[in-house]
Amino acid sequence: MAAAEFWYEFASTYSYPAAMRAASLAKARAVELAWRPFLLGPIFAANGWRDSPFNIYPPKGRYMWRDMERICSALGLPLRRPQPFPQNSLLAARVALALDGEERADFSRQVYALEFGEGFPIADRAAIAILLAKLGLDPEGVFARAEDDANKALLKAETARAAELGIIGAPSLVTEDGEVFWGNDRLEQGLDWAAGKQA
Amino acid sequence: MAAAEFWYEFASTYSYPAAMRAASLAKARAVELAWRPFLLGPIFAANGWRDSPFNIYPPKGRYMWRDMERICSALGLPLRRPQPFPQNSLLAARVALALDGEERADFSRQVYALEFGEGFPIADRAAIAILLAKLGLDPEGVFARAEDDANKALLKAETARAAELGIIGAPSLVTEDGEVFWGNDRLEQGLDWAAGKQA
Repeated sequence: MAAAEFWYEFASTYSYPAAMRAASLAKARAVELAWRPFLLGPIFAANGWRDSPFNIYPPKGRYMWRDMERICSALGLPLRRPQPFPQNSLLAARVALALDGEERADFSRQVYALEFGEGFPIADRAAIAILLAKLGLDPEGVFARAEDDANKALLKAETARAAELGIIGAPSLVTEDGEVFWGNDRLEQGLDWAAGKQA
Repeated sequence: MAAAEFWYEFASTYSYPAAMRAASLAKARAVELAWRPFLLGPIFAANGWRDSPFNIYPPKGRYMWRDMERICSALGLPLRRPQPFPQNSLLAARVALALDGEERADFSRQVYALEFGEGFPIADRAAIAILLAKLGLDPEGVFARAEDDANKALLKAETARAAELGIIGAPSLVTEDGEVFWGNDRLEQGLDWAAGKQA
């Protein structure tokens, strides 16, 4: 079965519609999708950016929010801007990485729905605990795994791996032959490539 | 008839495949396309960028060139990198603006084919003169119009207009209701919007 990696960052706006679409788009092409949460912060810091480029460059931010409105409207997804933007995504990324398979994917979609669908802060432990409980998981047990040293080190390693792969933003679809497709709007193209259609 | 504006910059890589596709995509949707050359330099300078972001941020540049290879390959377009990159596009933009209608579109496609299809410098007067002659135009006459004060001022005004519209990069498709769609990969979406399909 063909495979691809879906690299995403919880603070990233365009990762929201991508996360909501990724599973069904992959299934339709018989591509097995690995969900790879990572942090954009260290990659942006290498560019000298200490904040989201959407904040550093206001016209870019205005464009992005309008673009997100159009995209979410077309997909029937609600959109509310979380305050502040971007949200601190460290806890959510650690928790996602401590989960496996479908649990990771389900949790990730729930985080995006809360953050960009409802505009709710996600940096907060209580908010993440509610999501975990809704998924039938024990929040304290998951937090303990998410915040142990091995999992913290794994998230750092994943972020370093993203940079090595040439990832410059989120979401990114990475194929087995190392092609990177950046953006929600490149998800289909990347999955077609992964499926061997080389679109 | 529905209408849209195609804003492009001759130094912009992604404007090359977009320029080659724009006319047929617009025709298929019965959208009348206005070709609007402008300069990204002043817009980038407002971000503090004195060079292409693809040069300032090398991973972004590596991603873009690989992405361009895939895009051009899928479209059957040749791709060669001009040296230096980006090319100085001032003369080409002034000349394009001094031409009208189909002549402007034809000239613009020829510039992109020379620059990114053959990797040939376009800042050079002699190169532009050859293109003009190939189009059956009198190079000296066109240069005189292109470099008169009114045309120079018009290019400045067009570039200011681009910034006012919220354009942050090239190519951008702008609809009559003021929506901006940035990127070669958004051309279809923008033209669908212009045609009233609101895709």
